[in-house]
Amino acid sequence: MRGRRAVSTSRLLQRWWCCRPPMAPSNSSSFLRGSAKQASGPSRAAGRSSTFHQNLKQEASNSQLNSRDFRSSEFATLRGTLSLNCRSFGSAATKFPRSPAFSRITSEDIYHFKEILGEKNVIQDEDRLSTANSDWMKKYRGSSQLLLAPGSTEEVSQILHYCDSRYLAVVPQGGNTGLVGGSVPVYDEVIVNMNRMDKIVSFDQISGILVCEAGCILENVGAFLANEGFIMPLDLGAKGSCQIGGNVSTNAGGLRFLRYGSLHGNILGLEVVLANGSVLDMLGTLRKDNTGYDLKHLFIGSEGTLGIVTKVSVLTPPQLASTNLALLACRDYFSCQKLLFEARRALGEIISAFEFMDCHSMEMVLKYLEGVRNPFSSSMYDFYVLIETTGSDEASDKSKLEAFLGRSMENGIIDDGVIAQDMSQTMSFWRMREGITEALVKAGAVYKYDLSIPVDKLYDIVEEMRSRLGHSAKVLGYGHLGDSNLHLNISTATYDEDIFAKIEPFVYEWTAKNKGSISAEHGLGLMKADKIYYSKTPEAVNLMASIKRLLDPKGILNPYKVLPPSLILPN
Amino acid sequence: MRGRRAVSTSRLLQRWWCCRPPMAPSNSSSFLRGSAKQASGPSRAAGRSSTFHQNLKQEASNSQLNSRDFRSSEFATLRGTLSLNCRSFGSAATKFPRSPAFSRITSEDIYHFKEILGEKNVIQDEDRLSTANSDWMKKYRGSSQLLLAPGSTEEVSQILHYCDSRYLAVVPQGGNTGLVGGSVPVYDEVIVNMNRMDKIVSFDQISGILVCEAGCILENVGAFLANEGFIMPLDLGAKGSCQIGGNVSTNAGGLRFLRYGSLHGNILGLEVVLANGSVLDMLGTLRKDNTGYDLKHLFIGSEGTLGIVTKVSVLTPPQLASTNLALLACRDYFSCQKLLFEARRALGEIISAFEFMDCHSMEMVLKYLEGVRNPFSSSMYDFYVLIETTGSDEASDKSKLEAFLGRSMENGIIDDGVIAQDMSQTMSFWRMREGITEALVKAGAVYKYDLSIPVDKLYDIVEEMRSRLGHSAKVLGYGHLGDSNLHLNISTATYDEDIFAKIEPFVYEWTAKNKGSISAEHGLGLMKADKIYYSKTPEAVNLMASIKRLLDPKGILNPYKVLPPSLILPN
Repeated sequence: MRGRRAVSTSRLLQRWWCCRPPMAPSNSSSFLRGSAKQASGPSRAAGRSSTFHQNLKQEASNSQLNSRDFRSSEFATLRGTLSLNCRSFGSAATKFPRSPAFSRITSEDIYHFKEILGEKNVIQDEDRLSTANSDWMKKYRGSSQLLLAPGSTEEVSQILHYCDSRYLAVVPQGGNTGLVGGSVPVYDEVIVNMNRMDKIVSFDQISGILVCEAGCILENVGAFLANEGFIMPLDLGAKGSCQIGGNVSTNAGGLRFLRYGSLHGNILGLEVVLANGSVLDMLGTLRKDNTGYDLKHLFIGSEGTLGIVTKVSVLTPPQLASTNLALLACRDYFSCQKLLFEARRALGEIISAFEFMDCHSMEMVLKYLEGVRNPFSSSMYDFYVLIETTGSDEASDKSKLEAFLGRSMENGIIDDGVIAQDMSQTMSFWRMREGITEALVKAGAVYKYDLSIPVDKLYDIVEEMRSRLGHSAKVLGYGHLGDSNLHLNISTATYDEDIFAKIEPFVYEWTAKNKGSISAEHGLGLMKADKIYYSKTPEAVNLMASIKRLLDPKGILNPYKVLPPSLILPN
Repeated sequence: MRGRRAVSTSRLLQRWWCCRPPMAPSNSSSFLRGSAKQASGPSRAAGRSSTFHQNLKQEASNSQLNSRDFRSSEFATLRGTLSLNCRSFGSAATKFPRSPAFSRITSEDIYHFKEILGEKNVIQDEDRLSTANSDWMKKYRGSSQLLLAPGSTEEVSQILHYCDSRYLAVVPQGGNTGLVGGSVPVYDEVIVNMNRMDKIVSFDQISGILVCEAGCILENVGAFLANEGFIMPLDLGAKGSCQIGGNVSTNAGGLRFLRYGSLHGNILGLEVVLANGSVLDMLGTLRKDNTGYDLKHLFIGSEGTLGIVTKVSVLTPPQLASTNLALLACRDYFSCQKLLFEARRALGEIISAFEFMDCHSMEMVLKYLEGVRNPFSSSMYDFYVLIETTGSDEASDKSKLEAFLGRSMENGIIDDGVIAQDMSQTMSFWRMREGITEALVKAGAVYKYDLSIPVDKLYDIVEEMRSRLGHSAKVLGYGHLGDSNLHLNISTATYDEDIFAKIEPFVYEWTAKNKGSISAEHGLGLMKADKIYYSKTPEAVNLMASIKRLLDPKGILNPYKVLPPSLILPN
């Protein structure tokens, strides 16, 4: 143990118990009880959700203004009908032309779709298409002329059967909240929008197993479950818009990952429509089923390139009554690692989040977000950690957390810390961590990377990038440390090609060299389809391509995404 | 709430605290601290392990004696070089002849393998082949003439490359502890035994991520991790023999499933050698990696038919200090369900096992196992439930469990109960649940089924089977209720074809009709390869067969298993 300090535990504990950070006024809403929509007291969940929507709105209004920042040939690689209108930067896909194998929509096609779906669910309205053609960041834009809104699995099946026979390319679209261009058309693909498939099919109160349609919005599913005394095993900032089918298709991570793990462990069954329209019923509702290959995993995280998810069966954990949140200060990254190691032991069964941010992230938040103040008065530390616990017993959970923090302080692992005393403080602490994205947008241009790197090396890339870029940019490191997930963000006043050239491909090469993943939780989508070799071997990519060709021989499903298009489509 | 009883909580709690069941003498070994091998005080883990080995030994010595019970044409369907010598019964595979596509071993082949592996690792010794040709139950027997023992991935690769080029069929073999004939040759397949690949490759103390070779024995990995303060997320009765590669290949369930979930959630990476000898490196050590299709899941649970697992990366949870175990009595199955529902809430984060057994199972154990006595004196109840908790704080965990049990008794959900006060009592309670298999073997012939059925209907099949068979057989229901996993066992004095005809195919048809799985955790292997349609749709099975043909075009890997052979091999 390094830096042991001679401070009495009792004095330190007093600090835990008595902290009164100078935050926004308190309110008494419980964020575990589905009260997210109270106007006077938004919950933590609602806070995330509204931040997301504010961003969306703000991004939309800024898109014209900020298009002046967009001038790199790197970003202009997809020309023709696809334009990139970047506010947040990062690598763009290498140019791949519209595949000549695909047909173009005809009036006969429109007529046929109206026969299947009815007039009003075959959408050609320009405004609605304009929204659906672009992602929420306004980073990617396609030029689809047609949006279809099926209301049942049978309708999805008929759509795909027809599209496959006609060589019409298709992009499945859920809440369209992705970050890598996976849910928007690249050219003129038919958009299959899942909004209408939003029904809860069944819920088993004994086992906690929920079956719902793919178009259910995550927040709505959460509200349904809250009434039943359960929660979803995943939670995202985009929960107010994102859909469970999209969550499955992107293998979404999020804030409950540390506690409940990957969707590969929580999704019990899927119903999927394949490219040729056949329905693959794997909609089991059993925790255990060892009968043959577990095919559903192929569709978890394949970003709609192998099939369209239409129904989902998911194991939901019971809602627990007690949640605690502590904001801690550490002197160095080694202490953060040590804290994680100790927390996994001491808080084993109740730890539910372990997030970190460096001082540059904290400075950004303090500078650009209104109402956020330093909980440690004027003291600044090099690293901050948020530890959340969730359990079934308020008193014992809290005393366990306090005892752990007392020991950690005594051992010099943490230098200071506060435990949130009420909902207002809880929200304020989360606001610091979750507001970083918003603060970065206010600060100027930002280059965003979502990396997974072994914990011991995770912060090295931040420091290397900082020394590489010198004073030309601010380099921020934060993320889900408990999951080895770093959000590396580089902030500059305006977009700069020279800086970009110093970042890429260095960031991917470094990550590959250190056995990391170039996409921890966002997927590859269009943005990184040609960068897959940084994280996967050629043998693995070739096998993926073989499976794609097996399931979708004409390549109509979400083309140009996930895998290098040259492996799938004729040029 | 039904059956509320006017009994004071304090009186009931006194019972929890003061129980002194008339069990075996106490000992002080801690089963969480790797002291399993103390001769004077075997741990719960060691108890399971040694029971398994005793069974194995006993089964081996009984196999001649008991072969008189084997007379059904149902069991004699695989003739020729394969003989079935059943002690435990259940469906056998439909006859499928040796595929003429496969070559037979020549002296040139032997010479070549000696070049690759060295003389001593190419085994033709009759005694060693005799053991490797049969499963531990002596239920399946092949006639392989050759066992290869590779020591590295490169050697496995060379073996498969050669076998593929020569059309030599191969059966991968780990600890050979399976229950469905998945790891023994059917005819003269080359046995690739993984025993020599038993090294720990790396362990990261911060993240708890272990990388090891596939031939590591589960108990040895557990012992290694115990020294590091971690545990494996799975635990099986066969832990003393089974290997991690086999666990992955069969997607083993076991006793920690309720707490830590499926291997699909815990396995982070795999290295696999494909049929043609190419090495597929998916050996990631990251919790999050969304770069392309997550191919490793194809190999989890595919029972060695798609590739041979050579290395495994697994997320291991920290070892927690406190474990409690309660044995409870319920008046009916509805109360067991209610108890599960309430326990998931009240004990949410500390519950680690929820097992049940009916009175017929308890009677069997009390009658046939020495030293097992009724913990409730002379009272018998219709159902018994074991609840185990595991957490980080002895005092708070115990008080949480006691409070929950007090409430459950007050509410009439449970009729009686005892909490184990020491290791001896803990072992005695587990002995009742885990000794059922042993008791059944002593009682005579047994027909065994491993089913997954939605909890609310799980016991219906036991009752239906009981009324179907009348006085001709004893029908027992027990298993992992927390995972909806029923072990349905039917006991008769000797094997009887008429009884068998009443059991099958009824049991599979009933399970299929009630959306259950005909194999919860044992896999399909040889035993149920042709029964897959009871749990999977024709479309899903066809896709599995396509994937098999894609990965193993000649069908050399573990032929006749998992999928109906007619889909893969020429007849």
